[in-house]
Amino acid sequence: MNDHVYKHIQLTGSSKSGIEDAVQNAISKASSTVKHMRWFQVVDTRGHIENGRIAHWQVTIEVGFTLED
Amino acid sequence: MNDHVYKHIQLTGSSKSGIEDAVQNAISKASSTVKHMRWFQVVDTRGHIENGRIAHWQVTIEVGFTLED
Amino acid sequence: MNDHVYKHIQLTGSSKSGIEDAVQNAISKASSTVKHMRWFQVVDTRGHIENGRIAHWQVTIEVGFTLED
Amino acid sequence: MNDHVYKHIQLTGSSKSGIEDAVQNAISKASSTVKHMRWFQVVDTRGHIENGRIAHWQVTIEVGFTLED
Amino acid sequence: MNDHVYKHIQLTGSSKSGIEDAVQNAISKASSTVKHMRWFQVVDTRGHIENGRIAHWQVTIEVGFTLED
Amino acid sequence: MNDHVYKHIQLTGSSKSGIEDAVQNAISKASSTVKHMRWFQVVDTRGHIENGRIAHWQVTIEVGFTLED
Amino acid sequence: MNDHVYKHIQLTGSSKSGIEDAVQNAISKASSTVKHMRWFQVVDTRGHIENGRIAHWQVTIEVGFTLED
Amino acid sequence: MNDHVYKHIQLTGSSKSGIEDAVQNAISKASSTVKHMRWFQVVDTRGHIENGRIAHWQVTIEVGFTLED
Amino acid sequence: MNDHVYKHIQLTGSSKSGIEDAVQNAISKASSTVKHMRWFQVVDTRGHIENGRIAHWQVTIEVGFTLED
Amino acid sequence: MNDHVYKHIQLTGSSKSGIEDAVQNAISKASSTVKHMRWFQVVDTRGHIENGRIAHWQVTIEVGFTLED
Amino acid sequence: MNDHVYKHIQLTGSSKSGIEDAVQNAISKASSTVKHMRWFQVVDTRGHIENGRIAHWQVTIEVGFTLED
Amino acid sequence: MNDHVYKHIQLTGSSKSGIEDAVQNAISKASSTVKHMRWFQVVDTRGHIENGRIAHWQVTIEVGFTLED
Repeated sequence: MNDHVYKHIQLTGSSKSGIEDAVQNAISKASSTVKHMRWFQVVDTRGHIENGRIAHWQVTIEVGFTLED
Repeated sequence: MNDHVYKHIQLTGSSKSGIEDAVQNAISKASSTVKHMRWFQVVDTRGHIENGRIAHWQVTIEVGFTLED
Repeated sequence: MNDHVYKHIQLTGSSKSGIEDAVQNAISKASSTVKHMRWFQVVDTRGHIENGRIAHWQVTIEVGFTLED
Repeated sequence: MNDHVYKHIQLTGSSKSGIEDAVQNAISKASSTVKHMRWFQVVDTRGHIENGRIAHWQVTIEVGFTLED
Repeated sequence: MNDHVYKHIQLTGSSKSGIEDAVQNAISKASSTVKHMRWFQVVDTRGHIENGRIAHWQVTIEVGFTLED
Repeated sequence: MNDHVYKHIQLTGSSKSGIEDAVQNAISKASSTVKHMRWFQVVDTRGHIENGRIAHWQVTIEVGFTLED
Repeated sequence: MNDHVYKHIQLTGSSKSGIEDAVQNAISKASSTVKHMRWFQVVDTRGHIENGRIAHWQVTIEVGFTLED
Repeated sequence: MNDHVYKHIQLTGSSKSGIEDAVQNAISKASSTVKHMRWFQVVDTRGHIENGRIAHWQVTIEVGFTLED
Repeated sequence: MNDHVYKHIQLTGSSKSGIEDAVQNAISKASSTVKHMRWFQVVDTRGHIENGRIAHWQVTIEVGFTLED
Repeated sequence: MNDHVYKHIQLTGSSKSGIEDAVQNAISKASSTVKHMRWFQVVDTRGHIENGRIAHWQVTIEVGFTLED
Repeated sequence: MNDHVYKHIQLTGSSKSGIEDAVQNAISKASSTVKHMRWFQVVDTRGHIENGRIAHWQVTIEVGFTLED
Repeated sequence: MNDHVYKHIQLTGSSKSGIEDAVQNAISKASSTVKHMRWFQVVDTRGHIENGRIAHWQVTIEVGFTLED
């Protein structure tokens, strides 16, 4: 966090098990095309319900990555 | 999410184990009287502290359910 | 929550395992100097990424404690 | 708006044609069970996209109705 | 505030005398049909003006009540 | 949007037909006394309901106009 | 609240006795030059402290008045 | 909305006729380079005024599209 | 409000009679240990309900005090 | 800040050199017609870009002035 | 700002000298890959402290650029 | 930003010259009693006006410092 320039993107990941896993899934999917991701911030936490049970979680994050030379 | 009309309600559930369980407890309790719940959004995450330990979590969610004919 | 006066403080705790653990770590650290903590509210959930994996979570909470006589 | 007590509910209506129609659809559906609705406020405007075209609009409103004696 | 599940509703009460009275009026009116109300939070404070004088106050509150077995 | 100084005002216009018309009505009414209006931003969209139908829309806008020499 | 166009202004009034009185003071002062004020909304409530006592309250309101022909 | 990962982008479209058309214009323009757009949310509604008339609308939307394998 | 440096703290006070008294109670309690308090801002107004009556008010304020040499 | 009544207005000033200068330009322009301005608050900081350089800053402020007798 | 479609991106730039320079650094870095940038809005202003001195500023901006044919 | 626990405080500093200097003044004043300050975030930017000129700037920051063992 010194003299870098960061670009931010927003991603939504999902998971049947919980919030932490949904965030990791979003980051894993994006990491194949986005390099140098450094931090994230959770901006929305939602989910779908089926028959009175949480079917899956959907967590939206903002991710910062450095613009390298 | 096509031509349905949704009504939203707010619920607060609690749990000793964590956030995901508190959300499920709120949905389970409400499901005895509210049918057709489809999604939720977390709007507040709180908890109580006893002797320097988290005693229980309290999570407030907004829930959408369809108004059926 | 009757006739007490509460003071609020903000803390950020971190954890490699998840949100709940990061909150507990913040409370545990503060409890050595702050007594009578009663409740908390999550106000920000962030984290650091290393090589496409969540390296650790950072959760900021507001904590209320009673001003005792 | 004198000495009434209002209760607020949140509804989401949808329409293929636009925002105004989605709001009217939500109110029409609710009016079969909720009486004395007096005002609404738009709180969220969303929609679904199919093949680069808006498939339908989804508008969330807060509605106030009077609690009659 | 232990293992209860709370449901939240929003109400607007009015009064010629002031904010506290408008809140009490909303709660009194709702208490004939809603049981187990436990807390409220003020979310909006408005009023009407007639001839340069406050004619009445309108205060909107969110109320939490427990879903009992 | 170069070296002008703008002053902002807030207006609420109404219309039976829809949002765009309510905005135009507010601007038309104000234009008789306010010159050099350049832009607007919608800040609130409300309406009144009569017998389960939208009676009219009320849209609040912020308007910017230049302070001319 | 039918086909009027409203203009909004913001005022801050003060009082030694409390919130309601501070609002009335702001409206009374403005009523000498602003006609047709119809409603207000409280947007900020502050005050000054002297020697551990509230010296006076300062309440900021948004006021709507009709633009008459 | 099951196990997809969504990326969000923000777009501003404009139109002389109204809000719905401005949203469609933004989506149409982006669809030549962005595939798999699924939903949008309106985040800002503005416009320009010329001679007391709305010259055009400018609507900013957040769009979600799936990251396909 | 010239060249001072202010520190802010948050406090919650309670009262059976109303909002103004709850604020004064928070300030009175804190004034035994915090000197040079100058202003406050109300940030949250809540209360508890017992048997359909307001049992007590809980008002959270932010307080600014000068850091003296 | 004792028993005055303040009116608030919003202004946007611009400058090629920076934020502080843009604020001063807005105040200077308004001071020819608005007397007794006492404080301001920055509410928005924007700017225009030309060829990869900041062409000018645009800063929106809220200004409070006293209504004198 | 007529019939263009804008895309928005978020960037964080840093500088040892101040806010304006941090914004310019973010824009300069991005301009090597992003063409037609037209405006920016400051959305967050932060910094790092070392030994009681501001070590560098970190300013996050939203930037709009036109999608050209 | 690894396994530390941070405590946050809010400070307001002032300066006749500008925003950056007001922030540094707040940090310098606090550094005599608060150790290990690491970062800040600007949360409010205000100022006082005298005779149509900015008399001084008042900038409120949130500061994070580590709780050391």
